[in-house]
Amino acid sequence: MIPAEKIAQAMWQEDIASRSLEMRLQAIGLGHASLTMKVTANMANGQKVCHGGFIFTLADSAFGYACNTHNQRTVSASCSIDYLAPAFIGDVLTAAATEVVRSGRRGIYDVTVANQNGETVALFRGHAATVKGKWIE
Amino acid sequence: MIPAEKIAQAMWQEDIASRSLEMRLQAIGLGHASLTMKVTANMANGQKVCHGGFIFTLADSAFGYACNTHNQRTVSASCSIDYLAPAFIGDVLTAAATEVVRSGRRGIYDVTVANQNGETVALFRGHAATVKGKWIE
Amino acid sequence: MIPAEKIAQAMWQEDIASRSLEMRLQAIGLGHASLTMKVTANMANGQKVCHGGFIFTLADSAFGYACNTHNQRTVSASCSIDYLAPAFIGDVLTAAATEVVRSGRRGIYDVTVANQNGETVALFRGHAATVKGKWIE
Amino acid sequence: MIPAEKIAQAMWQEDIASRSLEMRLQAIGLGHASLTMKVTANMANGQKVCHGGFIFTLADSAFGYACNTHNQRTVSASCSIDYLAPAFIGDVLTAAATEVVRSGRRGIYDVTVANQNGETVALFRGHAATVKGKWIE
Repeated sequence: MIPAEKIAQAMWQEDIASRSLEMRLQAIGLGHASLTMKVTANMANGQKVCHGGFIFTLADSAFGYACNTHNQRTVSASCSIDYLAPAFIGDVLTAAATEVVRSGRRGIYDVTVANQNGETVALFRGHAATVKGKWIE
Repeated sequence: MIPAEKIAQAMWQEDIASRSLEMRLQAIGLGHASLTMKVTANMANGQKVCHGGFIFTLADSAFGYACNTHNQRTVSASCSIDYLAPAFIGDVLTAAATEVVRSGRRGIYDVTVANQNGETVALFRGHAATVKGKWIE
Repeated sequence: MIPAEKIAQAMWQEDIASRSLEMRLQAIGLGHASLTMKVTANMANGQKVCHGGFIFTLADSAFGYACNTHNQRTVSASCSIDYLAPAFIGDVLTAAATEVVRSGRRGIYDVTVANQNGETVALFRGHAATVKGKWIE
Repeated sequence: MIPAEKIAQAMWQEDIASRSLEMRLQAIGLGHASLTMKVTANMANGQKVCHGGFIFTLADSAFGYACNTHNQRTVSASCSIDYLAPAFIGDVLTAAATEVVRSGRRGIYDVTVANQNGETVALFRGHAATVKGKWIE
């Protein structure tokens, strides 16, 4: 089996979007991944509250890394997010994704987004579908 | 009643996030809003496919403008998205948000994201909750 | 093409659950279906409010009939429901399901549940997945 | 504080719907509840597969008991369910609900539905909203 780290490396090369938001891959393993991102002024409004879309994007990236660790190319089919607390400029958010179930072409992943104080900012649930192709042959 | 355009103007002033992604407000009215965004290289991966998080962010902004047109400050409580087709670098996406229901402190909004050819890229449903404060006194 | 009515008839024969709740199929066509159900004392609590599960079940049946009208056996993969108003004992609920999108093995259907006064009781969104087999060869 | 058992007893008196489906309350505590239900012929179709609506109803009941254990009357605002495996006539399903977050008037609860072999049949996430009134004064 290909180690999750190797697959993540291949994905990271392609993943300009996550890199352009200066995300960092903190941990990776079969069925799970953890990423961090600092909330910048460009992600927020005049009241310094982070736009929900950027919180979602971080969670979605963590989900993407987690569901691709099986070396089968996998895409997001649908996702939902619950916002529990606001995030502010300067906060460092961590999104931790874990596999809930994987069966046939489907997978379900739960992601928790927390701030630097360990407070939960959002809950995310992602539905993955495998497509053709492997990350590493 | 305060015209939706005036409220949108006040929101736009604060909304650095949507402006930093170069979104454009195309239409606004009581309970609805339409925004466009061009998919840039920074939003995509090496295969030129737009990261789902940016599609979500556009839809979330349209939802935000639509649900605040009643001049009551309103935030996003939870959202879900279904991805129907990929978006690519250079595509111009339009997110059109409409109010499905508004009752008490809750509101539900449906957003359709389409590309420049009118193909549906994603369906988004947002749940809004009113908070204290008005946009224009 | 097999008419939707014929497929619905074949489904109805198998569908002991919907019949045991005394649902009635009111309308059927390619990609849509409409069912009614009367709220009985057994579906409610001591305050005569219908248990949300029975509202969901009606919506889920309408979704099931709608997504099978293509004569391809199709099952429910995931669903969500928003409760907008309570339903009471004696209410006659109508669930109207329409196809939002159908592509490959996936389909998305929206169902509105209303009472006899036309008030919306719930919004339901269902995700369908085709499986092997046809209803009518 | 009122013990969760006492609140559940008061709810159970009112809850004709769960009793009519012959659910059993197996465990109750602050923020969690566990219920079982046997799949009967009336809940299934001709292929002996349980209608998803009854699986949802069991999960919804477990969610209802869990979110009311704080003695504040609480209703379901929106729910989602993922079906992972079919349930069959004769199966005994257990729905275990746990509180994910509770803040202000909102609460989020996760429910896992499993069969007698411990196989997960469905995942359910419920969003609760408090209303006026207590179960026990």
